[in-house]
Amino acid sequence: MLIYGKNVAKEFLKNPKNVKKVILQDNFDDKEIISILENNTFKVEVLRKYEMDHLVDGLHQGIMLDIKDYRYKDLEDILDENLIVILDHIEDPHNLGAIIRTCEAAGVGGIIIPKDRQVGVTSTVVKTSAGAIYNMKLVQVVNLTTTISKLKDHGFWIVGTSLEDSTDYREIDYTGKIVLVIGNEGKGISRLVKESCDFVAKIPMYGTTNSLNASVASGIMIYEVVRNRK
Amino acid sequence: MLIYGKNVAKEFLKNPKNVKKVILQDNFDDKEIISILENNTFKVEVLRKYEMDHLVDGLHQGIMLDIKDYRYKDLEDILDENLIVILDHIEDPHNLGAIIRTCEAAGVGGIIIPKDRQVGVTSTVVKTSAGAIYNMKLVQVVNLTTTISKLKDHGFWIVGTSLEDSTDYREIDYTGKIVLVIGNEGKGISRLVKESCDFVAKIPMYGTTNSLNASVASGIMIYEVVRNRK
Repeated sequence: MLIYGKNVAKEFLKNPKNVKKVILQDNFDDKEIISILENNTFKVEVLRKYEMDHLVDGLHQGIMLDIKDYRYKDLEDILDENLIVILDHIEDPHNLGAIIRTCEAAGVGGIIIPKDRQVGVTSTVVKTSAGAIYNMKLVQVVNLTTTISKLKDHGFWIVGTSLEDSTDYREIDYTGKIVLVIGNEGKGISRLVKESCDFVAKIPMYGTTNSLNASVASGIMIYEVVRNRK
Repeated sequence: MLIYGKNVAKEFLKNPKNVKKVILQDNFDDKEIISILENNTFKVEVLRKYEMDHLVDGLHQGIMLDIKDYRYKDLEDILDENLIVILDHIEDPHNLGAIIRTCEAAGVGGIIIPKDRQVGVTSTVVKTSAGAIYNMKLVQVVNLTTTISKLKDHGFWIVGTSLEDSTDYREIDYTGKIVLVIGNEGKGISRLVKESCDFVAKIPMYGTTNSLNASVASGIMIYEVVRNRK
């Protein structure tokens, strides 16, 4: 999987074990990155600009990394955690990446995504997550409601997010084992999933906008749970 | 300015005054949107698929809107507000759009952006803001530190965000007139701006990730101010 750009590269070069190969433009001269490369044993390939331009669509700034594919974890790997996030069909890779990054920063124990109609781990996701994905347990499941039943059996409380039939997010008790469910960008959380929630939380809004960006809403909710704990 | 896609179009068709023209593919058949168009007096142009494909790079789903350009406001227009957000050189249009959307939803009174090295109101910004930008006062200024001085003269407290030399964001008093400063995606807030802050807030992080996506951090900070007020 190819990722590119100086900032992203710097982030990934911190974890050499995830980097299969570094591709540099022949006149690449970023001193900080070159110093990192000199002090490690990366496999490096040098190409001309037009050769690199052919490899990706975006602005590569003279550096690309070929990184390891992400390996999903099993549901069993996260059942002992205290805070899990379920993404109910997030479509935008930028949102998925930003949510993974927030989860890793906030100490969330795992993220569950459905196999269908949900963006998986693409290079945009890896890039937007700023590398955080390699420190996060991501689990892919076939059926969200079955998974939620299993999580309930393991003592989790399920907190959904929705504007309708919901409670102000600041009024919910997050002290137990919590699963936060974040809905799709356009449609919100699905009916069956919502019905299986123990609580449905709402972030109050005061303007004409009636929803937040999915990654922003996730950030507010996740840090609300964290504030109740740490 | 052209925006496209069904979800975005639905959002914008709610405010007919911002729509100069609707461009439809000849076989467009989304019943909800067609019903909106039939019940209003939009100027509509019908094109073939290949003609529409030439107009934009992305997936237009058979509908585009030609919308009004955004008109920036003056600093004087927002001096009476209680909460203002300053963006210290945000580069990513998705971030700017998501921040505008959050600000509008949370009831922020205005957003200040610098003229240089900062993304302006592009069609991606308008699209990501889900139309919220037309209900938000955006001000472009030449110099952020001069602007901050002026805001201080008008009774505002300046709260920056940074990981260094900073206080937990939950421990700051946000009850007065507040200006929140959000830094650049890679570099954070600039030195001069940081020096002019009354408080510098930090969102605590517990993983290996040492920063959040700029729009996520903005959301957490903005709703923290809001929780102290409403």
